[in-house]
Amino acid sequence: MMERIEARYWIETPFPVEKAASAMAGEQSSGTFVKVVGESEELTRRHAARVERIEQLESVAAPSLPVSGALGFVPAEYQRAFVTLSWPIENVGYHLQNVMATVAGNLFELSQFTGLRLLELGLPEAFYKKYVGPRHGVSGTRKLVSVSQRPMIGTIIKPSVGLSPKQTGKRVAELVEAGVDFIKDDELMGDPPHSPFEERVDAVMTVINELAQIQGRKAMYAFNVSGSIDEMLKRHDYVVSRGGTCVMASMNWVGMSGIETLATHSDVPIHGHRNGWGMFYRSPFMGVNYTVMQKIWRMLGVDHLHCNGLRNKFCESDESVVASAKACLDPLSGYGDRALPVISSGQWAGQASDTFESIGSPDLLYVCGGGIVGHPDGLKAGVNSVRSAWEAALQGVPLGEAMSASTDLQRAVEFFAKP
Amino acid sequence: MMERIEARYWIETPFPVEKAASAMAGEQSSGTFVKVVGESEELTRRHAARVERIEQLESVAAPSLPVSGALGFVPAEYQRAFVTLSWPIENVGYHLQNVMATVAGNLFELSQFTGLRLLELGLPEAFYKKYVGPRHGVSGTRKLVSVSQRPMIGTIIKPSVGLSPKQTGKRVAELVEAGVDFIKDDELMGDPPHSPFEERVDAVMTVINELAQIQGRKAMYAFNVSGSIDEMLKRHDYVVSRGGTCVMASMNWVGMSGIETLATHSDVPIHGHRNGWGMFYRSPFMGVNYTVMQKIWRMLGVDHLHCNGLRNKFCESDESVVASAKACLDPLSGYGDRALPVISSGQWAGQASDTFESIGSPDLLYVCGGGIVGHPDGLKAGVNSVRSAWEAALQGVPLGEAMSASTDLQRAVEFFAKP
Repeated sequence: MMERIEARYWIETPFPVEKAASAMAGEQSSGTFVKVVGESEELTRRHAARVERIEQLESVAAPSLPVSGALGFVPAEYQRAFVTLSWPIENVGYHLQNVMATVAGNLFELSQFTGLRLLELGLPEAFYKKYVGPRHGVSGTRKLVSVSQRPMIGTIIKPSVGLSPKQTGKRVAELVEAGVDFIKDDELMGDPPHSPFEERVDAVMTVINELAQIQGRKAMYAFNVSGSIDEMLKRHDYVVSRGGTCVMASMNWVGMSGIETLATHSDVPIHGHRNGWGMFYRSPFMGVNYTVMQKIWRMLGVDHLHCNGLRNKFCESDESVVASAKACLDPLSGYGDRALPVISSGQWAGQASDTFESIGSPDLLYVCGGGIVGHPDGLKAGVNSVRSAWEAALQGVPLGEAMSASTDLQRAVEFFAKP
Repeated sequence: MMERIEARYWIETPFPVEKAASAMAGEQSSGTFVKVVGESEELTRRHAARVERIEQLESVAAPSLPVSGALGFVPAEYQRAFVTLSWPIENVGYHLQNVMATVAGNLFELSQFTGLRLLELGLPEAFYKKYVGPRHGVSGTRKLVSVSQRPMIGTIIKPSVGLSPKQTGKRVAELVEAGVDFIKDDELMGDPPHSPFEERVDAVMTVINELAQIQGRKAMYAFNVSGSIDEMLKRHDYVVSRGGTCVMASMNWVGMSGIETLATHSDVPIHGHRNGWGMFYRSPFMGVNYTVMQKIWRMLGVDHLHCNGLRNKFCESDESVVASAKACLDPLSGYGDRALPVISSGQWAGQASDTFESIGSPDLLYVCGGGIVGHPDGLKAGVNSVRSAWEAALQGVPLGEAMSASTDLQRAVEFFAKP
């Protein structure tokens, strides 16, 4: 049987659903707006995208997304449906950039749709052989930071912007002494004049290497290497030369081909930051689910994948956050390890229990910015509060009970949970 | 005076506009959700993003985009405004990936907004020195295809998918003999099993090189090289070795860093395909205007930029298409040439006059798929119809008059303009 790429969508359309699904299939395989010479029956049979399944949903009176120009009729209603299409691998080959052009390319623009969202993507096995996947993943990261069982506790350098390399190094010392496992650059911080990349690496790694001698384990720092290919590889090499154990990149701005090159080259885990991700999900009527994009980034070699967190400061629902994190932890065929979900945005001790309950795994990188550095009793109290909350969560101890046992946790609840 | 990056947005918010603008500025410079240690007044003064201007617009009763979770109050209305922010270059450095993380990164997700769109981006001069810009642009492309004055007329291989290299070569021969200046791979066509990249290049370039001898000018074929960095560079080199004069890439899936590497390496114009672009514009309440993105792609070295066309088969308004094409043709400081706007999607002879009138320039690549290959009298008649329409447009001759002088144009109007 010929291998096929399969994609599932949510659609909304003023046309009969079958007709709209055919338009999707046509546009993304043999189509143009008129039947052309050379579009033989044989060619269509071999190469046309196939409508595999249609699941009709409710209809609505008004379009969710506007259509420019005249449809040629006034729709009485707009029909919603789940639609699954498939393409023979013959059409595309084993190239993820071309897969995306096929399953997501022009579809969002088609005037046949007043809503279109890519929900799921299924790929033939051979893709997982071509693309290396995360080479460090959950277990590689655990080993590097010497943390087993519990979630790794991370934080972000704050203020995001404005600290000199020396000030950053001082802050890192305080955070590592306070007990964090992981620290990341803010995504705004790359190689700016006020904190040149190599100077920041020097300052940070001096501190981290020294404290590793004392503590007997080394904190991981994700340096944001985002830039041109040459810049990223050079920065990666510099990080590794100074004993660093992680590099970070803004996936949506570096892009698929750049991330693949960085990941293939890298000796350390790739921390995948998804800023810009709002464009993929913020409209409920258009975009791509992260359950799809995490797969793409993971195949390209990203080890850590941002997923937001429960009750985050952004607009993502808890349901979506949980689905994303679970997807990262779902093994992909043939890969040695899963991707490590990064739980962040407005996180503090208070979400630990619900996070564990809903995701069902301690294999997380739990990142608190203000939730650690904003603790009223300081950094150590901040880290302790998060650790205590997670210990309680993992052991099934209720928060109230855990608070009695930990002043730092109690103070965190008093401070962060106030209305 | 310190150089600043400036970005203009349309926003919608349940909060007072000033407060919302401050949240944007805070999140994208020093911010987290609580005030943290080290966020000194001096640091804030030097590094905080600045709210430059606020232009209050109408308010609406219902939110345009949903917000997850509780706002803590029930908004009476949602206020719209134009907001301009600026950042000191000290924060970011001359790196476009970090610029995007700053001006577009997490902003789309902020729960303070029920709508947020990036409209304009202003960069300090030094950016234009660092990034090479298009090295071929309008004039380089004109020279390669030996067409001055009038728009270059292009087409797309259709059916998009399914032709063997040999069949593709045959189709190219027919199209070039019919008089097209430019042909492109469909964006679905990369390096699939049924049309391996190098075999397709061989078949196509054999034909193009032969016909160039006969016609005295060489048609340009944009081969879709989208893939990993190594694949793209290898494919580019192969195209050039066979006498090819253009390579194409799916910008949104290759990504900024990959496009920059390809463009820096390339000896020929880069044809920038923007499939996936729907996600940036399809919701009127979220995204990035192409007037911004064309600037980014152009700085990274892309020569040809897709803009859709008037009365396109997609959902983009004519107003947006015209703004995009004009933006590509607006010179950027210090660059030798502008980017060549690619006018395509549902194009045929019928839009030539309005296109010229609204964009005001013949410096276009006017690409008709079905509009040429679907002409009832064949390819040559298809190309003639488009050329005649453009000649008339450039000379200010009304369509009716031009139809009397050209049977091919008349037949095109009868065929394509039918309701």
